[in-house]
Amino acid sequence: MIHADKIPNLPWQDRKEGSSDIIWRYDNNPIIDKSFIPTANSIFNSAVVYRGGHFEGVFRCDNIEMQQNLYLGISDDGIHWDIEPTPLNLYKPDTDEIIGQARGYDPRVCLIDGRYIVTWCNNYYGPTIGIAYSTDFRKFYQLENAFLPFNRNGVMFPRKIGGKYCMMSRPSDNGHTPFGDIFLSQSPDLEHWGYHRHVMGAGGGWSWTKIGAGPIPIETDEGWLLIYHGVATTCSGMIYSMGGAILDLEHPWEVKYRCKPYIMHPEEIYERVGDVPNVVFPCAMLCDGETGRLAIYYGAADTVVGLAFAHIDEIMDYIKKNSD
Amino acid sequence: MIHADKIPNLPWQDRKEGSSDIIWRYDNNPIIDKSFIPTANSIFNSAVVYRGGHFEGVFRCDNIEMQQNLYLGISDDGIHWDIEPTPLNLYKPDTDEIIGQARGYDPRVCLIDGRYIVTWCNNYYGPTIGIAYSTDFRKFYQLENAFLPFNRNGVMFPRKIGGKYCMMSRPSDNGHTPFGDIFLSQSPDLEHWGYHRHVMGAGGGWSWTKIGAGPIPIETDEGWLLIYHGVATTCSGMIYSMGGAILDLEHPWEVKYRCKPYIMHPEEIYERVGDVPNVVFPCAMLCDGETGRLAIYYGAADTVVGLAFAHIDEIMDYIKKNSD
Amino acid sequence: MIHADKIPNLPWQDRKEGSSDIIWRYDNNPIIDKSFIPTANSIFNSAVVYRGGHFEGVFRCDNIEMQQNLYLGISDDGIHWDIEPTPLNLYKPDTDEIIGQARGYDPRVCLIDGRYIVTWCNNYYGPTIGIAYSTDFRKFYQLENAFLPFNRNGVMFPRKIGGKYCMMSRPSDNGHTPFGDIFLSQSPDLEHWGYHRHVMGAGGGWSWTKIGAGPIPIETDEGWLLIYHGVATTCSGMIYSMGGAILDLEHPWEVKYRCKPYIMHPEEIYERVGDVPNVVFPCAMLCDGETGRLAIYYGAADTVVGLAFAHIDEIMDYIKKNSD
Amino acid sequence: MIHADKIPNLPWQDRKEGSSDIIWRYDNNPIIDKSFIPTANSIFNSAVVYRGGHFEGVFRCDNIEMQQNLYLGISDDGIHWDIEPTPLNLYKPDTDEIIGQARGYDPRVCLIDGRYIVTWCNNYYGPTIGIAYSTDFRKFYQLENAFLPFNRNGVMFPRKIGGKYCMMSRPSDNGHTPFGDIFLSQSPDLEHWGYHRHVMGAGGGWSWTKIGAGPIPIETDEGWLLIYHGVATTCSGMIYSMGGAILDLEHPWEVKYRCKPYIMHPEEIYERVGDVPNVVFPCAMLCDGETGRLAIYYGAADTVVGLAFAHIDEIMDYIKKNSD
Amino acid sequence: MIHADKIPNLPWQDRKEGSSDIIWRYDNNPIIDKSFIPTANSIFNSAVVYRGGHFEGVFRCDNIEMQQNLYLGISDDGIHWDIEPTPLNLYKPDTDEIIGQARGYDPRVCLIDGRYIVTWCNNYYGPTIGIAYSTDFRKFYQLENAFLPFNRNGVMFPRKIGGKYCMMSRPSDNGHTPFGDIFLSQSPDLEHWGYHRHVMGAGGGWSWTKIGAGPIPIETDEGWLLIYHGVATTCSGMIYSMGGAILDLEHPWEVKYRCKPYIMHPEEIYERVGDVPNVVFPCAMLCDGETGRLAIYYGAADTVVGLAFAHIDEIMDYIKKNSD
Amino acid sequence: MIHADKIPNLPWQDRKEGSSDIIWRYDNNPIIDKSFIPTANSIFNSAVVYRGGHFEGVFRCDNIEMQQNLYLGISDDGIHWDIEPTPLNLYKPDTDEIIGQARGYDPRVCLIDGRYIVTWCNNYYGPTIGIAYSTDFRKFYQLENAFLPFNRNGVMFPRKIGGKYCMMSRPSDNGHTPFGDIFLSQSPDLEHWGYHRHVMGAGGGWSWTKIGAGPIPIETDEGWLLIYHGVATTCSGMIYSMGGAILDLEHPWEVKYRCKPYIMHPEEIYERVGDVPNVVFPCAMLCDGETGRLAIYYGAADTVVGLAFAHIDEIMDYIKKNSD
Repeated sequence: MIHADKIPNLPWQDRKEGSSDIIWRYDNNPIIDKSFIPTANSIFNSAVVYRGGHFEGVFRCDNIEMQQNLYLGISDDGIHWDIEPTPLNLYKPDTDEIIGQARGYDPRVCLIDGRYIVTWCNNYYGPTIGIAYSTDFRKFYQLENAFLPFNRNGVMFPRKIGGKYCMMSRPSDNGHTPFGDIFLSQSPDLEHWGYHRHVMGAGGGWSWTKIGAGPIPIETDEGWLLIYHGVATTCSGMIYSMGGAILDLEHPWEVKYRCKPYIMHPEEIYERVGDVPNVVFPCAMLCDGETGRLAIYYGAADTVVGLAFAHIDEIMDYIKKNSD
Repeated sequence: MIHADKIPNLPWQDRKEGSSDIIWRYDNNPIIDKSFIPTANSIFNSAVVYRGGHFEGVFRCDNIEMQQNLYLGISDDGIHWDIEPTPLNLYKPDTDEIIGQARGYDPRVCLIDGRYIVTWCNNYYGPTIGIAYSTDFRKFYQLENAFLPFNRNGVMFPRKIGGKYCMMSRPSDNGHTPFGDIFLSQSPDLEHWGYHRHVMGAGGGWSWTKIGAGPIPIETDEGWLLIYHGVATTCSGMIYSMGGAILDLEHPWEVKYRCKPYIMHPEEIYERVGDVPNVVFPCAMLCDGETGRLAIYYGAADTVVGLAFAHIDEIMDYIKKNSD
Repeated sequence: MIHADKIPNLPWQDRKEGSSDIIWRYDNNPIIDKSFIPTANSIFNSAVVYRGGHFEGVFRCDNIEMQQNLYLGISDDGIHWDIEPTPLNLYKPDTDEIIGQARGYDPRVCLIDGRYIVTWCNNYYGPTIGIAYSTDFRKFYQLENAFLPFNRNGVMFPRKIGGKYCMMSRPSDNGHTPFGDIFLSQSPDLEHWGYHRHVMGAGGGWSWTKIGAGPIPIETDEGWLLIYHGVATTCSGMIYSMGGAILDLEHPWEVKYRCKPYIMHPEEIYERVGDVPNVVFPCAMLCDGETGRLAIYYGAADTVVGLAFAHIDEIMDYIKKNSD
Repeated sequence: MIHADKIPNLPWQDRKEGSSDIIWRYDNNPIIDKSFIPTANSIFNSAVVYRGGHFEGVFRCDNIEMQQNLYLGISDDGIHWDIEPTPLNLYKPDTDEIIGQARGYDPRVCLIDGRYIVTWCNNYYGPTIGIAYSTDFRKFYQLENAFLPFNRNGVMFPRKIGGKYCMMSRPSDNGHTPFGDIFLSQSPDLEHWGYHRHVMGAGGGWSWTKIGAGPIPIETDEGWLLIYHGVATTCSGMIYSMGGAILDLEHPWEVKYRCKPYIMHPEEIYERVGDVPNVVFPCAMLCDGETGRLAIYYGAADTVVGLAFAHIDEIMDYIKKNSD
Repeated sequence: MIHADKIPNLPWQDRKEGSSDIIWRYDNNPIIDKSFIPTANSIFNSAVVYRGGHFEGVFRCDNIEMQQNLYLGISDDGIHWDIEPTPLNLYKPDTDEIIGQARGYDPRVCLIDGRYIVTWCNNYYGPTIGIAYSTDFRKFYQLENAFLPFNRNGVMFPRKIGGKYCMMSRPSDNGHTPFGDIFLSQSPDLEHWGYHRHVMGAGGGWSWTKIGAGPIPIETDEGWLLIYHGVATTCSGMIYSMGGAILDLEHPWEVKYRCKPYIMHPEEIYERVGDVPNVVFPCAMLCDGETGRLAIYYGAADTVVGLAFAHIDEIMDYIKKNSD
Repeated sequence: MIHADKIPNLPWQDRKEGSSDIIWRYDNNPIIDKSFIPTANSIFNSAVVYRGGHFEGVFRCDNIEMQQNLYLGISDDGIHWDIEPTPLNLYKPDTDEIIGQARGYDPRVCLIDGRYIVTWCNNYYGPTIGIAYSTDFRKFYQLENAFLPFNRNGVMFPRKIGGKYCMMSRPSDNGHTPFGDIFLSQSPDLEHWGYHRHVMGAGGGWSWTKIGAGPIPIETDEGWLLIYHGVATTCSGMIYSMGGAILDLEHPWEVKYRCKPYIMHPEEIYERVGDVPNVVFPCAMLCDGETGRLAIYYGAADTVVGLAFAHIDEIMDYIKKNSD
């Protein structure tokens, strides 16, 4: 059983006749490119939620100064998006005082207890995890950064576990970190974090360099479905692939299953060619609770946004079958 | 006011209907590829001048031994070129004695006081700036290297300033230098150089790794228009973009305006895919003094030559408007 | 005014006649070497407190397997020490259940609200800050690690500030980190940490590579006296010197004064020669509230423990006078 | 004269009208991609032999766990291949005892004295050269690894020379080795190796970083025709090109001719774009003894297999003419 | 039981009263410094054997050009040495033809079947293991290098095992290798080597960077006593310590016991200060079969030769007791 | 014949009885330590001249902020020095306008045409060569930096050659440069430099990493006597030794003789232990024209100043005899 709401208008395209792919790409990928924001150099690793019958998103846009900012967008079908032309403003909690525009990158959005929590890679003397919340997806109130630098890929769980907020993240260094594991930290208040747990380390083959959590995990009776990125380094740079794992429901730092093969790998020209070649980087995943259909939003080549589809039961089965 | 001669046959193509680009690419790019020289592996970062109603150029060709040499070329329209099949010879100044073929790369050509000065990245126990001059664009007389190694991207100003020749350059190291600023040096005789001045350093975003001067600056009443390249480093290598700045007329080491966004970024397949992916590298810029039209020649992916267009007044305005 | 208890038997030696040193070394340095623990390779960066008329300490000993452990020691005069032959045990909070021996390095000890808080560099998939407390300096109860890796040099403040526990630390990477600033984090319960603040960054000259907090700060009316280490890197490795700063009492992440010169530099043979040459690394500082005398314990060359003396008012004056 | 059997059904396509290329690509490249093996991520650097009127091959396939294994394949025309869906098993010599599947990469196959010797990059505490033989191309018996790590690109000669087996290899390090020369070692029994000789070092230009032997050399009256790969490193990674040399027949560590230009360079999109951009990596070469036609199998972009053609006399001439 | 001849005049000094050291240094260390050879910069990592009632040695001397050569020496007591002023000559096997002087470093000498086998770090396009033999310790006949580069620390066993010569070595890279394990290779003839086996890898603590075999192992009923060096890397360079292990008699690549603590660590000023600080590097070990006394010769700080003593039974016990 | 004035009071000490050293150290080394300047951390690589019967010097002092400055000193005997307590001021040429204190390091002083030219490593967006002159050794007038960064070790010749000022220097990078050769540049006016010539490159053994000119060369009939430093890199850092060469009188970029062995190597405790272990770094050399006695001033361990002696004819002979 999946703990997910119905999303009747979830973007969807059936798997190609004869294909046995577990995940398949949308035919009209990329769905978003730099043309969606006037000053954009690229729009990619971005987060999307279903809200009140339509879709809302927080988008990473690197502008033509190569500043990294977050932007809001909206869509009726999850495919065709209107993105605001200026970055999202951040407010002091429960005030009308604007702190400034949301600078940073690789956002995720998590609905928990009626609030949309955005986590992203913020800069405070190095990369760390920024947090902001909103109830209306218009005004976002920024909290304290969750961790000391250097950290990236902060990803919340969509409910409290053991009475605490839980967030995965990847401690890193101050450059193109050549290592990195997924950890989980816990908080009573989203402001103070502790009880840090190691979840899983870089693996073999396609993820030997580092890994990082992807979309908000989806709760199922068998555990949390985690989609994550894994990185291998060749003599010409890094390759970002997508992997899957299932985490224990109440002790989510315990990995029940970890799929040995990747579930998606850069292959299309828009994934292989761009500002950073050979990247698929998942940041959001929507699940229709009724059909188990999944729509995965991922950044491609650090340049555009792609969309891919799957059935949650098939992915769960595949992960379990291909786990050690 | 622009200090530039008329070039009635300047290569040109109007901006696309509806586009608001400051710089736009030629539809038939690349205009030059390796097929132009029999033994070429690639022809790219190259310099072009207008001379007597037609166009002449000094081309960087890496041959199939991957030796880097300079070649002469000629064109009636600046688009269709005849390039000589063997490298340019260099002569001892004011003699008929050939020193040898011009080895090296990334040439620029500057007309000053009736002489065409070629500067390029020469090798003398490391990269440094070679200098040669010609009055007829057939015989080039080589002077002493301007600087001690390690240096690249030597770019002359097209007139003496304060009574001295002025050259920008980028001190570097002996490899794929991960740093680098633009300096300016001065000389009474093109042979002895001093009064070195720092012009500008690596910037933010798209140019955080290093920068280097591009084409010969164009003199305007508001200052020297400088187009330069800036480099950012990703986990999979370097990205070369194009930027713009305006330098003080009489103290050209003083930056009056520096455009924060890049003005061109690798985007087309011939800029993104090649021997060095993601490179646009401007080496020459022609300006029609009458219309203010600009034609910019740039190397793409270290493999081919591209052509782009702009209006000088628009670029000047854009730089000023987007400067700090 | 100094907020420090009387320590009538504080170790002390007057400054040499004619010397104008702000800090001076004990004549019989090193006071502790590897002979104090049977299986020791080296005993160095260690913490000491005054307790009930005598001195107690937590010592870093790297044994002959080069495992890093913490050991307890006791002394009547702060100079002659008895160190236990086996590492300190850690207990589950408020139980008699032993977790294991205290592995790790570079301990500090802070008395706060009747409890002695030991913080040290613990290993949990990388270096991070371990925390344990004791009321009797015999049984130490281990709490959760304060932070995600990678972190070192966790140093508590000896009272709550703004209602919260405060700890300085230095985020780092997983090797011989070539960078590093001092941050401050806050906690309501010693278990969850947030409100991270940057305190100060690597400086010029002797501390250009990285810095890290040293002993527990001493409260004075003018602010917190912070002694810290700073590191410069030569072509043959790192040099660790000692520096001083004064932090704001209620906003201790605000630096009121930062002494530009170092206050101590490796100079004696036992500081220059050892497992890591050229290291002075302060971990503890005792202050006699009556006389203002300071005794500073520091590791030397990652091999032995040295002792140095100063007058708190002189150090405070020196820092203020030599600050920007 | 060429010492090569007739291969009447050698894959072949005539050179394009008007082309003067020494080596030309097959129009329908790539001939093999990941679709040929169900669990493949990529199929590339692979070895092929002519055997009993058809073609057999040992293929490098990196599966979707990014494990590297060897697979058997068969073809009637050398172009259309059937590849087995599971990796090749290795047996203990002259037994039916299976050691396991053939893990490793970059195989070569050499027919010598009636046995097909497979050499490949095996892992034994680092990369080294694995050896196995077969008489029927079905059962492969694994011998001891030839060398201590770290080694790659082991390539046999197709007959004993001076009474010994001869193998070229490239000593390397345990990562993306940034250096590497070709050596030759000798063995009486394929198990003990000695009399190591340096054959040739990294060259200029296109091979300045490292080189490695490619297909099994072909014997001619003028010497052994060696096709090898050479690597140059740009600011965005490595470029693998193909070069040619002629080795002395009886002292094959003596280089008679070494072609200064490369003979093939990444140029097609399937060579420039893939898991490792800009790679052509030759592993097999078939020669029809009657016509002198050559078919070269090479990996492209570490992703697919390409096929290229040449005339052996033209290549020999070209190498001689372009040698120092 | 020890398989070692009597050495009545073995250098010896009793352990200090009250000491419990397993190994203790000679009081008059260093026994050899650069003054022993006129053109020496340093004399260190050197090999010594007992032969006909006196001692003979092969010494590493780096001369004042910093060329590394081997020299012969002789001594009546193993402490006071006469070293020849010019390097050892190497001859073609069983001829009077001199190949040249023995260039290279870190020799070991092994008596096997009446021949003294010298192995050392030779240079052949990188470091590899040179081999020469002598029956009279005057004329040394050079064989082929044992391995392909890159290799160091080749150490023979003093008898054939399983019918083959056995040699340990450490595959490495072409610089100051930051990794390295001990392997064992086998040969029927000292010229061809195969059947390579991994013996042991870098350990924890004092040997985490790399390890390398030291003196010729000594045969006991319990196995081969192996003394080896292990290296840790600090922020200021490498520390070389000495460790011990016991290898299986007939399968010497199987480690029966491996002592977790080091058995000797740089501590004396001549071990801590010199051309390479903090090095003890054992190259020879003599055992008196009657008393079980051991004399260990080791290089100190890459500058001088030291001598240390032990009882073989104590060392064996210590290794066994401190093994996992 | 030596072109050097008489220096009757040249510091001197005879070679030790029985020694055959070419250069020998002063018994009371170091002659200068940090106690000579109140705020000094270290005083080392410094320049000295003979002037009007006494000695004057420009001293490198790194203060306790680790700022590098130049200081003036004076001495009657060249051994006992009075150094001014504050850094040397620099003036605008031929004015009384003070530019500021002389920041930088590694000064050399050259008397030419009645002016004392100080060259040192100045900072201008990286290390480069500063120049100042004085006629009275009190007021120093600063000229333009000679070169673009990155450069160190600028050393003048004491007369014009071919009508031009000549300076050696070592182009480098912006860190602890791991490479570096000696070049020579020429100038008509000390302000503009050109005609750059390569003098010599890093050598073998003790100087394989980099080299740099030392004191002002001394003119003899046989050529210029050049003393320089050479650097080797071990696994624990760099070793700086001293070497000698003889340059052609009129084409001083031509090396007539280059001594293969070093002529001095760190050996004394004050050369081996200090802020940078294992450094001897010569910056000045005085020659008594009457006796040919040489006094060499050198920095030791980047901490103190040492003095060494030699006979110029012996050194010249030694260099010639030990040259290739």
